[in-house]
Amino acid sequence: MSDVVSALKSSLGERVRTDAATLEAHRHDSWVLSTLLDLEGRGYPSPQAVVVAQSTEDVSQTLRICREAGTPVIPFGGGSGVCGQIQTETDSVVLSTRGLDGLVELDDNNLLATFKAGTMGDLAEAQVQANGLTIGHWPQSIALSTVGGWVATRAAGQYSSGYGNIEDILFGLEVVLPDGSVLRTHATPRAAAGPDLRHLFMGAEGTLGVITEVTFSLRALPETVQGQCLHFPTFAAGLETIREFIRRGWRPPVVRLYDAPESYRHFSAHVSEGRNALVLVHEGPAALVDVQLAAIKEIAGQSGGEEASSAVVDHWLESRNRVPTFKELLSKGLVVDTIEVACKWDQVQSLYDEVVTSLNKVPDLRIASAHSSHSYRSGTNLYFTFVAKPKDSKDMADTYRECWRRTMEATIRVGGGIAHHHGIGRIRRDFLAQELGEAGLDTLRKIKSVLDPDGLLNPGALLPEK
Amino acid sequence: MSDVVSALKSSLGERVRTDAATLEAHRHDSWVLSTLLDLEGRGYPSPQAVVVAQSTEDVSQTLRICREAGTPVIPFGGGSGVCGQIQTETDSVVLSTRGLDGLVELDDNNLLATFKAGTMGDLAEAQVQANGLTIGHWPQSIALSTVGGWVATRAAGQYSSGYGNIEDILFGLEVVLPDGSVLRTHATPRAAAGPDLRHLFMGAEGTLGVITEVTFSLRALPETVQGQCLHFPTFAAGLETIREFIRRGWRPPVVRLYDAPESYRHFSAHVSEGRNALVLVHEGPAALVDVQLAAIKEIAGQSGGEEASSAVVDHWLESRNRVPTFKELLSKGLVVDTIEVACKWDQVQSLYDEVVTSLNKVPDLRIASAHSSHSYRSGTNLYFTFVAKPKDSKDMADTYRECWRRTMEATIRVGGGIAHHHGIGRIRRDFLAQELGEAGLDTLRKIKSVLDPDGLLNPGALLPEK
Repeated sequence: MSDVVSALKSSLGERVRTDAATLEAHRHDSWVLSTLLDLEGRGYPSPQAVVVAQSTEDVSQTLRICREAGTPVIPFGGGSGVCGQIQTETDSVVLSTRGLDGLVELDDNNLLATFKAGTMGDLAEAQVQANGLTIGHWPQSIALSTVGGWVATRAAGQYSSGYGNIEDILFGLEVVLPDGSVLRTHATPRAAAGPDLRHLFMGAEGTLGVITEVTFSLRALPETVQGQCLHFPTFAAGLETIREFIRRGWRPPVVRLYDAPESYRHFSAHVSEGRNALVLVHEGPAALVDVQLAAIKEIAGQSGGEEASSAVVDHWLESRNRVPTFKELLSKGLVVDTIEVACKWDQVQSLYDEVVTSLNKVPDLRIASAHSSHSYRSGTNLYFTFVAKPKDSKDMADTYRECWRRTMEATIRVGGGIAHHHGIGRIRRDFLAQELGEAGLDTLRKIKSVLDPDGLLNPGALLPEK
Repeated sequence: MSDVVSALKSSLGERVRTDAATLEAHRHDSWVLSTLLDLEGRGYPSPQAVVVAQSTEDVSQTLRICREAGTPVIPFGGGSGVCGQIQTETDSVVLSTRGLDGLVELDDNNLLATFKAGTMGDLAEAQVQANGLTIGHWPQSIALSTVGGWVATRAAGQYSSGYGNIEDILFGLEVVLPDGSVLRTHATPRAAAGPDLRHLFMGAEGTLGVITEVTFSLRALPETVQGQCLHFPTFAAGLETIREFIRRGWRPPVVRLYDAPESYRHFSAHVSEGRNALVLVHEGPAALVDVQLAAIKEIAGQSGGEEASSAVVDHWLESRNRVPTFKELLSKGLVVDTIEVACKWDQVQSLYDEVVTSLNKVPDLRIASAHSSHSYRSGTNLYFTFVAKPKDSKDMADTYRECWRRTMEATIRVGGGIAHHHGIGRIRRDFLAQELGEAGLDTLRKIKSVLDPDGLLNPGALLPEK
């Protein structure tokens, strides 16, 4: 047992796990490449220890002890990240937040809920819903991710087009800084009191601190929920409809437009081949939902949109949180992943075309398709899916990297943003300079250097190697 | 002429002003205390020079030359700040952004407008409106402030309850860092690519960089605009109405509730003494405005709200951008200011009572009143006005400081936030540790130290002295 593990054990006792199964289970997150490397027998080594913190003080102590020893610390929530945010080395100590579990306070009057950071998303939402309220944040991973992980990765939920992303829902947070000190942001609905420090830790992917508590600004459960499905002759016609109804002031929370291949793949029972399905969920007062439904139907009609059975929406609602088991696909020799990027409205068609065209140049590519799932006044995201089946399974990792590289390069060429909501991790980090610019990346490195001078917090994630 | 002024002149020529009138006009912003000190003949000294930058490169050069010389640089936009963000010393160089003027690009399809940072707010809005669009950001100072100043101070506009504050409108920015390098944030509607660097400069009050260009995400001008005025027997009944209609999903852009003294002061022609007036402006598709008007009327009725003539709203719309001339009031011996703070819904009544009670202990206080002008799911702001007339005019500055101190202390006691939208400047900086916590303030100081190691950018603003 190393000195640092001894020191951790003498401070934290049983919260320090060194059994092989626990170590093995904390080597990486849900990144496809990590799973593939495991299958190929060249997975990452186990960390030295996994500390399952039970309190903010446990987190502080862990960071202090590891800093003293010069040991890297890898914060670990639900482990559902898909970009390689977590990857251990033999000297790593993993700091699991899963022992920081549960509702701290539910405040109906102020529409606030405070959770310990390791609370699983679905349980957090269920507790809030039991009181007639909702967080309104629905990542597909809701049953696999923690509320702290949502913040650390700058997550987006399926209801974002009306309710906003995690930055619009996060009211306050508690974070343990690399030196072990505890920062709690002030609990006010809005402040002009210097830079907003919540934004320093949102999206930092555990490189600047360990989030230990989060407070969300909630919503009351809506009076009415109403699905609506429209389908369009072209993807562009569907995009134009979304752009136009947002421009006019309509904001249904769920706005998802599938290209023709995906529409047919998911909704063939209700949508004819070649049509592009737009799935909308309206929520709110009945009077508002009524006028919004009618207005959007009319706007869609101007772009050749026709209404389909709302059974499409029911089907989506039922299956929306099914996270595919990549392991099974990988073991069949299929290289699969999704990649979300973002752009302005007038770039969407080029972004779609460029990425699909470039992906189709990958040998043995089977599928390259996309949908838009988060829309804004000035643009939208595209969520690509690719599937390839290399003839030689030894080429799977290379094929995987090539698909990503092509998508990132095409996105940059068009002027889009390389990451809409899954973060940077390791798969995108070499493209970060093009996203932030050299001055932006340099600013981020300076902040890292002054908050974590020894570079011990989640090294290798987010920031490219120099 | 000092060496640094010579160096600036040799690089920037006529853009470096040293005439007495220009220097005199750039000694401070619109903070009441600075004006009072001028009237008392103990105003701040003039700076060495005022650089009127015409380009981003001019800003870079100014920062590089001043850094080399160890000379403090004070960024200056419209000069409409009201918290002492600008205060010169004899060795200061003021960097005016007013030469960075005008629309760079208007992009109707993507609802985007890019302006140079020194563009005046009203002119920016007028250019956008001429194209059927709106920025939707209406600070009272719109004709006195620059678009870059809105971002540097984290401004809020009168239409914020529906359209959000500057952080919800800012799409991207260009900022010159203290070392003269230029950071441009990427132009995408949303990203999960590390901490959001826009939030580092929003609210930094010119201490971390000089904003040179801003891009806003616009809205189309609404199909319908409709005013509504309701009045309530108590301030609490009005607050409860706002809380409830936001909770149910209604979001009129303008939501302003005046306490009884202010209601009578502003709207006595239409609102009886003792009633608390709620001014709403609804905007959007006609169908949405119709149902929203009816729903809010019904919700208000449950708290004793009655509808008043919408002439109240017309009166507010006409007078809303009239900024009081404090100089005239000061010269009559009246100490006057407004202070905006924020809190959660269940703190509002205590915040109101504590501040008014505490202000009333100030000798010779004439007025202590408030309105709420920016509401959120989880709380609102309060915007206090105080007027005092000390018997001895020598006591004016002390009385001013006492009113502020009492308001800040009462706000902190109740658990509110010390600054909703005017920023910290000098009047609030000694309370910043209580707003951010020691770890928050320390984090901010560390970021400052690594980006501006010599502490030359707007020293004295935002951060308390050590």
